[in-house]
Formats: sequence, structure tokens, C-alpha cells
Amino acid sequence: MKIQNYREVKGIAAAPGVTMRIVAGPEEKAPTFVMRLFEFEPGAAMPFHNHPWEHEVFIIEGEGALKHSGGETPVKEGDVLTILSGEQHSIRNPGTGRMKIICVVPLVDGKMPGMPEKK
Amino acid sequence: MKIQNYREVKGIAAAPGVTMRIVAGPEEKAPTFVMRLFEFEPGAAMPFHNHPWEHEVFIIEGEGALKHSGGETPVKEGDVLTILSGEQHSIRNPGTGRMKIICVVPLVDGKMPGMPEKK
Repeated sequence: MKIQNYREVKGIAAAPGVTMRIVAGPEEKAPTFVMRLFEFEPGAAMPFHNHPWEHEVFIIEGEGALKHSGGETPVKEGDVLTILSGEQHSIRNPGTGRMKIICVVPLVDGKMPGMPEKK
Repeated sequence: MKIQNYREVKGIAAAPGVTMRIVAGPEEKAPTFVMRLFEFEPGAAMPFHNHPWEHEVFIIEGEGALKHSGGETPVKEGDVLTILSGEQHSIRNPGTGRMKIICVVPLVDGKMPGMPEKK
């Protein structure tokens, strides 16, 4: 059992203006999935990409936009995004405030799967 | 891919004063884990229990208390709780405001595992 505040966890630059914190996962001996918290500065975006694992995302704070193969959909606090294996996606913060999200992924071969490369 | 706000998802009484919403999981064809959102009214609690699967919990709003085999630890917004297989635990809301948490569990035999029984 481990209790920690996400603000105590070291941030990693996942993309320009996007900080990722791995808040629960292999380091806590969690065997199945990894919880990460991402903070997006205004204008920041993750690359448009896909991968053979799913995301379950919860928007904690702010407003964003989810780009997908059918276009782009606005998202906001309280929205939950289920993105399945192989589905193209990216999330960006088109607003003027911070956007904060939780994104959970499965472990792949016992590890957190890789981050998308810059395009 | 599915986008929905948690407030649109039907709530289920998980315990007196505790509403659970299953926001991402088998219904969305997610294959590995289930994201649930729980709202605790003031004074509400889940039973003290354990089970052979893990929780990864994020406190979105409010203040609570995590009971475990070593006592009880206060928790608050931004805290992340990793509770492993077999670890005794319960969460309660000792405050005067609402507590809102995300709790992710693995699928077991392709389904969300059961809820604790009342003691």
C-alpha cells in the first residue's frame, strides 16, 4: 500500500508543455495497469498517434480537444475518454488555462508502454 | 472510442451514501481494467475488506480517510492510493463536503470484480 500526493511525484516532459507524473504502477508493485497524471499548459499537445493498447482518460480540470480519425471533439472536466487499441488520437489544450488529466494504460510485458514519438 | 461525461452515467449505490459510476470498462470494450467514479456523502464509508486484485485510486475532490491494517491515514485532493492484492482497506468521508474519487480495478475473468459485502 502506498499513499502519495501527485505533486510529490517527479514530473517528466512528455511533450513540449506537457508534464507527466507516473503516480501508480510498477514502482508501487501494481501488476496490471499504470496511472499517470498529465498537465497541459495552454497550447500544448500530444502527437497524433496510435498503439496496440488502450487508454482510459479522465479530465480532472480544464478544457481540451480530442483529435481522432473522425475529426476533433471538445472535452472538459468530468469527461471520460476510452481510446481502444489501434485508434488514432491526440489530446491538446486549446484553452487559456491548465488542463489536467488522468490517463491509465495497461502494463505491456510488465512495464509501462512507450510514449509517442514527435512527428 | 467513446467520450462521455461521468455525470451522464447511471449511478449505482455501492454502500449507503456512496454512488458508483462505471465510466470506462467492458461496456466500452476496454479489455484490461475498469475505471469507476465514486461519490461519498459526508459520513459515508465503504466496508473494511480485502480482495485478490489491486486498486489505483485518485482523490479528485474532498477529504477522506483510508483505513488499513496499520490504522487510519487522512487523504485529500490529489492523493493517489495504491492498494495491492490482499491488503485490508476501506475509505470513508469524515468531512462535511462531498468526496469524489476515481478507483481503477483490473478485469477478472473479463468482468469487473465484485463489490464488498456489508459487514
